[in-house]
Amino acid sequence: MQSIALRLRRSGKSIGLVPTMGALHSGHLSLVGRARRGNDIVVVSVFVNPAQFGPEEDYLRYPRPFARDAKACRDAGVDYLFVPDAAAMYPDGYLTYVSVEKMSERLCGAFRPGHFRGVATVVARLFAIAQPSRAYFGRKDYQQLKIIQRMTKDLNLPVKIVSCPVVREPSGLALSSRNRYLSLPERERSAALFRALQQAREMIEYRHITDSGCVAAAVSALVKKIPDAKIEYISVFDAETLVPLAKIAPPAVIALAVRIGTTRLIDNILVRKI
Amino acid sequence: MQSIALRLRRSGKSIGLVPTMGALHSGHLSLVGRARRGNDIVVVSVFVNPAQFGPEEDYLRYPRPFARDAKACRDAGVDYLFVPDAAAMYPDGYLTYVSVEKMSERLCGAFRPGHFRGVATVVARLFAIAQPSRAYFGRKDYQQLKIIQRMTKDLNLPVKIVSCPVVREPSGLALSSRNRYLSLPERERSAALFRALQQAREMIEYRHITDSGCVAAAVSALVKKIPDAKIEYISVFDAETLVPLAKIAPPAVIALAVRIGTTRLIDNILVRKI
Repeated sequence: MQSIALRLRRSGKSIGLVPTMGALHSGHLSLVGRARRGNDIVVVSVFVNPAQFGPEEDYLRYPRPFARDAKACRDAGVDYLFVPDAAAMYPDGYLTYVSVEKMSERLCGAFRPGHFRGVATVVARLFAIAQPSRAYFGRKDYQQLKIIQRMTKDLNLPVKIVSCPVVREPSGLALSSRNRYLSLPERERSAALFRALQQAREMIEYRHITDSGCVAAAVSALVKKIPDAKIEYISVFDAETLVPLAKIAPPAVIALAVRIGTTRLIDNILVRKI
Repeated sequence: MQSIALRLRRSGKSIGLVPTMGALHSGHLSLVGRARRGNDIVVVSVFVNPAQFGPEEDYLRYPRPFARDAKACRDAGVDYLFVPDAAAMYPDGYLTYVSVEKMSERLCGAFRPGHFRGVATVVARLFAIAQPSRAYFGRKDYQQLKIIQRMTKDLNLPVKIVSCPVVREPSGLALSSRNRYLSLPERERSAALFRALQQAREMIEYRHITDSGCVAAAVSALVKKIPDAKIEYISVFDAETLVPLAKIAPPAVIALAVRIGTTRLIDNILVRKI
């Protein structure tokens, strides 16, 4: 993949990279479409990265519907599908990790120690391998997006990070490969997460409530109505630094991580004005 | 620098990078000569990297004879001299670090916590900025060389690391920018370090002594004869993994770090056979 990518770049072609863990849904495909329109060549990587899963997490049961993913990529006009295996990516003697300090320790990072180190490391390597001009990330994984933007800037990587909107089901539920873990009733109930975020945004943007404790409490009250919901966090933070805000000042993000039964879901919404 | 380098690479030129902290001596210039012979374009970077100095170390007093360095580079046929300042390399909000685990904790790393994290981070960034085909490192900083090789391989960086021999004074003292801290008597006495390493190698290669404790004790006895010498470590380790060897098996390295007065010197020698 690297030698192909280096040759393409030397011949003047632009490359758009969409890094994924596979189990592609319309959210991923929206990134692929954006990459397709903006670049000569589109590379999709599919790699369920063990370094970003904790020991108690779903690495082994994470869905790997490879034939379907390959077909979806072909249909979407992807030029190269890069699918390394874990032994090739982490051979014996592998020792190097990329960390984005502070930003990686908050929010999801507090509940998933080492997760964002695994993400930053694999993304830095996928950039080295696929030599992208542009790389595409969805805003559902907002913390991941900001960490990757920070890493790319800090390490002077010559890659433009393109941030893409969350794709949602008609119910409002953000698309995620993990949604397939939800039972049908759980899936229906999970739509309340986005409704809670929307109401929080309205509290801020239209009712001018700037106390984040008050906003978080309102979201929490709505989430707690969902049966079997277990809140990991509900947080209002600065959209760039991810530092929690006591008094909300835009641009800010309201984000949550909630377990519905055994399935961990995340979502967020941007607050643009107060 | 990055836009120049990307343009050069796209036009098919090879780039040789010699990363330095300046205060250039013949050791550096041997790297530059090697880069000059092997590449279309030679880039030398001069950056006294604060991230690789401990709080009690010589960051502030590290020599910065910039005009002399620039002249030496011009005379050696260097095409680009890249001299960023610390505020440009570590702006407010900088958060990203590259770590090579285990290898960074041993030897010099045990005495200079964080040093190799600073080295790996700045080298990864200099690679991103100068886009080298090849990068040149001296074997005096043997641990640094092996950590950079490991990082380059692990992060899939498309850079060939070229390892170059130690350049020595006629006395045997390894050239170092820090040698200028030595008084004349200290400088004369410091030549004993290399003689001690040579004798250790002879013990192994010609007298077939493979007990590393025995070899280290012999080196230690010789070093202790130097007035004002303070040993940080004397170690025999595997040349690739840097893991200490109880029973010496080649390729191995005998390395030492010794303070002569207030000046910290390092040196090493390769053992090729037993």
